[in-house]
Amino acid sequence: MKVLLSNDDGINALGLYKLAMAFKERGHDVTIVAPDSERSATGHAITVHHPLRVLEHNLDEIKGFAISGTPADCVKLALDTLVTDVDIVLAGINRGPNLGTDVLYSGTVSAAIEASLDGYPAVAASLASFEKHQYDISADFLVYLAEKYLEHSLPQGTLLNVNIPNTTLEKIKGVKITKLGERKYYNNFDKRTDPRGGAYYWLAGKVDESNPQPETDVWAILNGFISITPLHFDLTNHHFLQVLADWKLKI
Amino acid sequence: MKVLLSNDDGINALGLYKLAMAFKERGHDVTIVAPDSERSATGHAITVHHPLRVLEHNLDEIKGFAISGTPADCVKLALDTLVTDVDIVLAGINRGPNLGTDVLYSGTVSAAIEASLDGYPAVAASLASFEKHQYDISADFLVYLAEKYLEHSLPQGTLLNVNIPNTTLEKIKGVKITKLGERKYYNNFDKRTDPRGGAYYWLAGKVDESNPQPETDVWAILNGFISITPLHFDLTNHHFLQVLADWKLKI
Repeated sequence: MKVLLSNDDGINALGLYKLAMAFKERGHDVTIVAPDSERSATGHAITVHHPLRVLEHNLDEIKGFAISGTPADCVKLALDTLVTDVDIVLAGINRGPNLGTDVLYSGTVSAAIEASLDGYPAVAASLASFEKHQYDISADFLVYLAEKYLEHSLPQGTLLNVNIPNTTLEKIKGVKITKLGERKYYNNFDKRTDPRGGAYYWLAGKVDESNPQPETDVWAILNGFISITPLHFDLTNHHFLQVLADWKLKI
Repeated sequence: MKVLLSNDDGINALGLYKLAMAFKERGHDVTIVAPDSERSATGHAITVHHPLRVLEHNLDEIKGFAISGTPADCVKLALDTLVTDVDIVLAGINRGPNLGTDVLYSGTVSAAIEASLDGYPAVAASLASFEKHQYDISADFLVYLAEKYLEHSLPQGTLLNVNIPNTTLEKIKGVKITKLGERKYYNNFDKRTDPRGGAYYWLAGKVDESNPQPETDVWAILNGFISITPLHFDLTNHHFLQVLADWKLKI
């Protein structure tokens, strides 16, 4: 199959390279279009006030392009202009989890949403740890998942968010299909004072991992499972259309 | 009521000022926490690699803070640290529409989603035109809507996306409660060559406004109505949990 890869950690990230190699080793045709430097926590930002630069940036024998933009820019530009024939788009493997409400901030998930908006099967993939990343098990699993995805297919507008525990094959307990959970943070901002007496704030925040809801991605990862969540990008809250109509608003 | 205002056009944008004044004239207590410069199309980006600067920036007698960050940063920092008592959060009035699938890219909508994530009633407001903006009618309508919102209340996790036609009161045909429509673009990228022969790409794209789906925000605005769409931020596609379980994936 013809695979387009992107990410938000930048084109030189090891997780992206390992994923590309895993697809190549299984005989698939891989193209990488990824940001030229790290763009994490960019959400679904796109670049409208500057032009985008495209530099050829092959990784071993894998064709690649480094883009001076966000993950969403990369996928949009790739599918519109750079890569004419694509069966599936994967974003990742991200260095760190993308779980629960945090997916709203995720450049990785936005890259996959952008592909889904354009009508392609899409997967956002993350290694759910902030240290000692071992990408090989994840890379192999994602190739297997992509093959299964194209076997079964999903309707347009449905994509997958995958988080994988950072551990040995033996210690992974299995695969759970999950809902997005909640990611609650506390102590969000660290207020400091600069040498001239001015205040500045660092976004900090510790995750509250107590009592994760069952059947959620947060629960699955905490309990050693691979988590796969089907996502959509329809932000309409259909349940409240009638409720709002009953407010009888007028101009 | 106690109103927190933000936007993505920056703290000096006229739409924000007009909205603040309209609330003040109705006797409400207003605080502005907004980006220090334009941050449109930032999606739900947050700032994690730099600290945020906070500068007092009052507009007439309205208390304001200019933040060196994104709309989501502004709301997160405001509700966590700067403003202790808030009844409702509004983002806008945006200079230009935020309709259909484009809400995924919108800093305005992300500011409102951030407020909703934190448990506050929230409204994203946009003037649906790219020129000759007349904010007064919109500002008055949004004060009325905020008052109605607090009268009725909505459950946590539900927010409103409002688009208002840029026309006279007489020409606005009424208020429609809508679903998000599709925003399809064509000719997305304009490829150019710099003086040294290097290629660069501008995100361009013309909206295809033919055949908007009925009952959508896109349809409402094209037909002269104020559009109000109830939004949520649960990206789980609940319909496909069972479908995916039937794939029987394993590690």
